[in-house]
Amino acid sequence: MHHPEGYVNHEIEHGIATIEFFHPSSNSLPAAILTDLAKTINDIGIDNRVNVIVLRSAGDGAFCAGASFDELMAISNEAEGKKFFSGFAHVINAMRKCHKFIIGRVQGKAVGGGVGLIAATDYAIATTASAIKLSELAVGIGPFVVGPAVERKVGVSGLAQLSIDATNWRSAEWAKRHGLYSEIHDTLQSVDDSVNSLAERLAHSSPQAMAQLKKVLWHGTENWDTLLSERAAISGHLVLSDFTRNAIQKFKSKSAK
Amino acid sequence: MHHPEGYVNHEIEHGIATIEFFHPSSNSLPAAILTDLAKTINDIGIDNRVNVIVLRSAGDGAFCAGASFDELMAISNEAEGKKFFSGFAHVINAMRKCHKFIIGRVQGKAVGGGVGLIAATDYAIATTASAIKLSELAVGIGPFVVGPAVERKVGVSGLAQLSIDATNWRSAEWAKRHGLYSEIHDTLQSVDDSVNSLAERLAHSSPQAMAQLKKVLWHGTENWDTLLSERAAISGHLVLSDFTRNAIQKFKSKSAK
Amino acid sequence: MHHPEGYVNHEIEHGIATIEFFHPSSNSLPAAILTDLAKTINDIGIDNRVNVIVLRSAGDGAFCAGASFDELMAISNEAEGKKFFSGFAHVINAMRKCHKFIIGRVQGKAVGGGVGLIAATDYAIATTASAIKLSELAVGIGPFVVGPAVERKVGVSGLAQLSIDATNWRSAEWAKRHGLYSEIHDTLQSVDDSVNSLAERLAHSSPQAMAQLKKVLWHGTENWDTLLSERAAISGHLVLSDFTRNAIQKFKSKSAK
Repeated sequence: MHHPEGYVNHEIEHGIATIEFFHPSSNSLPAAILTDLAKTINDIGIDNRVNVIVLRSAGDGAFCAGASFDELMAISNEAEGKKFFSGFAHVINAMRKCHKFIIGRVQGKAVGGGVGLIAATDYAIATTASAIKLSELAVGIGPFVVGPAVERKVGVSGLAQLSIDATNWRSAEWAKRHGLYSEIHDTLQSVDDSVNSLAERLAHSSPQAMAQLKKVLWHGTENWDTLLSERAAISGHLVLSDFTRNAIQKFKSKSAK
Repeated sequence: MHHPEGYVNHEIEHGIATIEFFHPSSNSLPAAILTDLAKTINDIGIDNRVNVIVLRSAGDGAFCAGASFDELMAISNEAEGKKFFSGFAHVINAMRKCHKFIIGRVQGKAVGGGVGLIAATDYAIATTASAIKLSELAVGIGPFVVGPAVERKVGVSGLAQLSIDATNWRSAEWAKRHGLYSEIHDTLQSVDDSVNSLAERLAHSSPQAMAQLKKVLWHGTENWDTLLSERAAISGHLVLSDFTRNAIQKFKSKSAK
Repeated sequence: MHHPEGYVNHEIEHGIATIEFFHPSSNSLPAAILTDLAKTINDIGIDNRVNVIVLRSAGDGAFCAGASFDELMAISNEAEGKKFFSGFAHVINAMRKCHKFIIGRVQGKAVGGGVGLIAATDYAIATTASAIKLSELAVGIGPFVVGPAVERKVGVSGLAQLSIDATNWRSAEWAKRHGLYSEIHDTLQSVDDSVNSLAERLAHSSPQAMAQLKKVLWHGTENWDTLLSERAAISGHLVLSDFTRNAIQKFKSKSAK
């Protein structure tokens, strides 16, 4: 699925589906990409040719810059706000409900919703350059939709650190120590070797056992369809504040080159 | 609020409220200090001039020695026991329900209830000398009231280690690795720089977003008014045992100089 | 209790009960050993002479190789499957419900159910050689019965890493960092010194306080009688698959010397 800016692609080979997303702004996530991502994961989740999924983004820069600032600025009422943030909710819920394991392949930094995507994978392998940040509070919102997925991996203590200290990066080492990354590697080649090796092993593992294991690992999240929707409404309300408008305006003028 | 021994002070400046408590016995916590602390947090929690709270204790020695041994020894029945331990419950619940983030500033060691106070902050910054100990079992009781707050940060595994191995200190490094401290610094100056920097940033962050984030970070603790009260009754019962009387007597004669 | 192959022994001295199990195949766990282990823990749990329990296995090789492959291969229907895996459920539930603290003494590697036993102790002390592996997925099943106990210690993120990456060992250092081990030591002598020192201290601690603390540390697991039984049924079903038959056959022929 191609868009004027960015895409969601996938290919299936030897039981392994590889999903790749791209956006020219450091792989940020506009609504169209989020919709495609959720749909692709849902479709592949029931594709019998597939035994395991690899989720990656394009390029050798950032893994994902989170929500699209342009779209955030365009939100003009609570309904639009809730709808926008529900885009992340749908992707996380698609990943959560998929009966197949999703391996995250992380080549670089992740911010906000991008951290949420990584948290919703079942096993994330990253480079040592893959620092993370939940910067939402700096623009007057919060990591409400991705919060449950991030907390599930790094604990409430890790989520508090990330979300309260919103302007500082946490290193890939921090993210590994707190359970967001399962492995970190010095080079992208080593990341890819490890991703391929695990994907091949899982492609030859018992689909029944993996489906049961996935279910067990996500126990207690059965209410996330509702929860993440409620969370999207919180963000959708806060994003309309003057605080957010001014903060995003400042960010945008600062990063304009 | 001043007492014959010790005090709870606070000052408000540029949206930052700093609460300081002091007791000459290594900042231990008699009932009067606990009552003042809970009241101060409750009052500041609804003070519109305040956007963020810093909780600290006085001096450059221990952060907090926990419950006052003198008062523990004076407890003569279960009602008094429950009332004494409820003092900690009220402080933790005040911190939990406060709509503002509380930054903990930790200059040195913490024991028992002192570890509970730190756990109930939203973001704790400590010196590398700030070792911790849950020594309750050594005097025939247990960290029942502070347990939920400590477990929320360090997990059930960390709580088990601290509470079962009751006579050994865990280092500040341990406490950071397990999520009790968000940051540790070699010098107190560096701790203060980091506390001030974070407090100033939060003083200029969106109060609405922070209130929502605080609520979300404390989800699942809605029953703590009841739970911590039940826990206070357990400690209040155990503290009457001969085991506790003898153990505290021994500690006191040992530490008498 | 002696069996043609292997045993469960115990001795009681100065308030400390030491339970030891042995099986010639790297301390693997056939049904008879599991039954004896659960019974011994239940009996000692109500023995007034005992204040604390040490759980260990024999020899200086592996701590425990998990389920017995011979018995896995002999399972011919779902009822037998559920019954076999319930053996682990009974041991874990006996450990959980025991009012006394159980110290785990770990001299070497642990696999599958063996990792579950360690996770169900209250405080585990291991050598630095004590790597762990949840290899269930490699034979078409999963760590369903031991999952709740392992997740309670290492979090859902740790459990995901262990169970998805089923063919790789995690080091003792990993296990300590994630909360499975409370301490690791370079030598077995140092492990034993630490086990003895903690056991002696607990043997002289307040039984009432310890019983309350044990209860509090295991809060939220009240449904495990049912939960682990349901989990045993999942494993009992999966183990009948051709995938499992072939995988175990391969393992056995590989390890035959």
